[in-house]
Amino acid sequence: MYLSRIVQGMMRLRDWNFSTKETEEFIMKTIDLGVTTFDHADIYGNYTCEGLFGEVLKSNPSLRDKIQIVTKCGIVLPNKETKRIHYYDTSKDHILKSVDNSLRNLHTDYIDLLLIHRPDPFMNPEEIAEAFLELHKSGKVRFFGVSNFTINQFEALQSKLNLPLVTNQIEISPFNLEHFENDNIYFLKGKNLNPMAWSPLAGGKLFDVSNDKSVRILTTLKEVGKELGIDSMDTLVYAWLLNHPVGVIPISGSGRLERLKNAVEALNIKLTREQWFKIYEAALGHDVP
Amino acid sequence: MYLSRIVQGMMRLRDWNFSTKETEEFIMKTIDLGVTTFDHADIYGNYTCEGLFGEVLKSNPSLRDKIQIVTKCGIVLPNKETKRIHYYDTSKDHILKSVDNSLRNLHTDYIDLLLIHRPDPFMNPEEIAEAFLELHKSGKVRFFGVSNFTINQFEALQSKLNLPLVTNQIEISPFNLEHFENDNIYFLKGKNLNPMAWSPLAGGKLFDVSNDKSVRILTTLKEVGKELGIDSMDTLVYAWLLNHPVGVIPISGSGRLERLKNAVEALNIKLTREQWFKIYEAALGHDVP
Amino acid sequence: MYLSRIVQGMMRLRDWNFSTKETEEFIMKTIDLGVTTFDHADIYGNYTCEGLFGEVLKSNPSLRDKIQIVTKCGIVLPNKETKRIHYYDTSKDHILKSVDNSLRNLHTDYIDLLLIHRPDPFMNPEEIAEAFLELHKSGKVRFFGVSNFTINQFEALQSKLNLPLVTNQIEISPFNLEHFENDNIYFLKGKNLNPMAWSPLAGGKLFDVSNDKSVRILTTLKEVGKELGIDSMDTLVYAWLLNHPVGVIPISGSGRLERLKNAVEALNIKLTREQWFKIYEAALGHDVP
Repeated sequence: MYLSRIVQGMMRLRDWNFSTKETEEFIMKTIDLGVTTFDHADIYGNYTCEGLFGEVLKSNPSLRDKIQIVTKCGIVLPNKETKRIHYYDTSKDHILKSVDNSLRNLHTDYIDLLLIHRPDPFMNPEEIAEAFLELHKSGKVRFFGVSNFTINQFEALQSKLNLPLVTNQIEISPFNLEHFENDNIYFLKGKNLNPMAWSPLAGGKLFDVSNDKSVRILTTLKEVGKELGIDSMDTLVYAWLLNHPVGVIPISGSGRLERLKNAVEALNIKLTREQWFKIYEAALGHDVP
Repeated sequence: MYLSRIVQGMMRLRDWNFSTKETEEFIMKTIDLGVTTFDHADIYGNYTCEGLFGEVLKSNPSLRDKIQIVTKCGIVLPNKETKRIHYYDTSKDHILKSVDNSLRNLHTDYIDLLLIHRPDPFMNPEEIAEAFLELHKSGKVRFFGVSNFTINQFEALQSKLNLPLVTNQIEISPFNLEHFENDNIYFLKGKNLNPMAWSPLAGGKLFDVSNDKSVRILTTLKEVGKELGIDSMDTLVYAWLLNHPVGVIPISGSGRLERLKNAVEALNIKLTREQWFKIYEAALGHDVP
Repeated sequence: MYLSRIVQGMMRLRDWNFSTKETEEFIMKTIDLGVTTFDHADIYGNYTCEGLFGEVLKSNPSLRDKIQIVTKCGIVLPNKETKRIHYYDTSKDHILKSVDNSLRNLHTDYIDLLLIHRPDPFMNPEEIAEAFLELHKSGKVRFFGVSNFTINQFEALQSKLNLPLVTNQIEISPFNLEHFENDNIYFLKGKNLNPMAWSPLAGGKLFDVSNDKSVRILTTLKEVGKELGIDSMDTLVYAWLLNHPVGVIPISGSGRLERLKNAVEALNIKLTREQWFKIYEAALGHDVP
């Protein structure tokens, strides 16, 4: 499976208010930056983002071979009119229907990578495995993974599945070390799996000066940035992620190309271990023991 | 191994103040309801419940083949007179003696399923395995499991044992989601093991209106009950457990047959995923992410 | 691999202000007590303790065959002058250099057991494995282990290593039950691995009467000590550790031989399960469930 080292997230595509032409331009410039993988979910933009992206593939089908499409299923969004609540559905039937919808919306005949969006307390790993196998055999989906799973949830699903789960998409950033604390980082490294990282910049918390942790991290980023001659703190946070041996694949969620360029610049930056730990310890709020 | 889909718990048999005749009637009516498995422990009723049950098997030995007996060992109860404290003993010697006592008290020559009652911080999995093998070879016990074990404790014991552990008896109810949170549910499903669930009704907390969580859960149960045309909230909680794909085997602890009937009625109820999550989210106190 | 049942810790060797002659005498008397394993780390005494110990081996090389040397690497200590921060380095290069330094300082050509001192959030298990294999092939290190690792961190490293990790050196004492709570004790027992225990006496907390937990534990130790005819509470704590079926190898950190004798005396003491639990429950602050 190939994913570009940095991934462009499409969660907010609807909010960017792009015309189809603008979306196409954005995608082409993204590809020019070497970022060829696009991260979707059925539910993004209240079930609209896949469709907005698909309009581009419809008008310019030759783009399909140049990109990799990741999408997700398993969450059902609430609906005030029908009084539907927010819940999960990882039944075989729902997964198959969700993928068919995604293919239709995206104007493509295959998904590169399909993820179960959230660990479902009602999930039946055998059913998920059946759905995955069927999607694999039909060629509708090439690779499979999960998102936000713990180690044990990952293992429970993998134990029923005759295909390797290829990633766990989790939140990783200096603002969120939970997957260091719950050992997911070590587990994934032990399995040679690259985690995809959502919210690598913690959604703007980086510059929230009302927050002690943010101030602490930003102060340290500036120090390390000075040592390395890096002005963009975005870039440095991406470098912090990209330097980790687990092989983090960060997802840039912005619709502004400058932001994505900041991420791409991080590919050329090498932190020393000491620099990496300086940022880690600022995030922890104390030295390692 | 066969266990009935719902199990009758005998922890409070002493408190029911039944005559042997009344106990026999209770057992026979329980069997008539399709509930053929009875859950004991050496210590229930301060070491008396197995004996009270055994009186029935003594007077009516033909009952033995119609039922499955689960019992447990490993806890030593405190004793004020001898100043003995409350502790655990999972030594080979204690397990063997405890089973011999249980057989004598129950007036039977075999236990269907023996569980280690609690994870023992002083346990030696090799010793437990030796005891289990010996009990298996002698025919005194047919199957083995644990109760209240974490995933790692389960794996530590299983790694030393040449017989499969067949269950983990744990507390599961809308009032106690700890085994969702600690991943036991996912682990057991991954191993195709049915957890037995103790306190499926959380010991009456369901109707404790002084408790915010209870009120929240009960309000939601009533809503879902209305959708399904179910009046008994007991029944609905049992249905919530029985519908889960992990295959929960709930233990009804009441000595009143109407309560057991409420449980048995749940076998015919099918919740939608959305209904299951409505109750789960009421229990959580918030939506799933 | 052979380690003596009790290990002498050398973390504070510098603080003891021994002459080389005094250190030699201390070592020889320690050996006379049957304590032949000495626990070091590259960083102890701000990188000085291995050297102080090595002076003895230099002047009396015949001692080497009578003892086992454990040392550790992976922590980099801060340095005010160079403004170096406190961080971890488990790169192959650092591990190899650190062992070469240890060998030079200790005046020996082999380490019996090398441990990774702390789980490194930046670690690459494959690199550690490469370093370990190279050290094994060259004969510089005979056995390998870890310290302060969780179960998942242990498994991640083991999965990349073609040699068995032989121990996890962790803090265990009645004052610190964390490795019961995180299941490390059960995991290690399941793997037949003996944990080494640092701070078995919790660094003097035993006699800290300002601390409720200490008072609670000490009161119970005195009761159990009276039952067993043991005056030294140190001895009783060591016995509590040594009696556990996981096979705890406690590290005595004192430079006073009487303290080590207290530990050695514990080898002859047998606690009943009830006595062991009395101390465990005093440590918990409540009965087991």
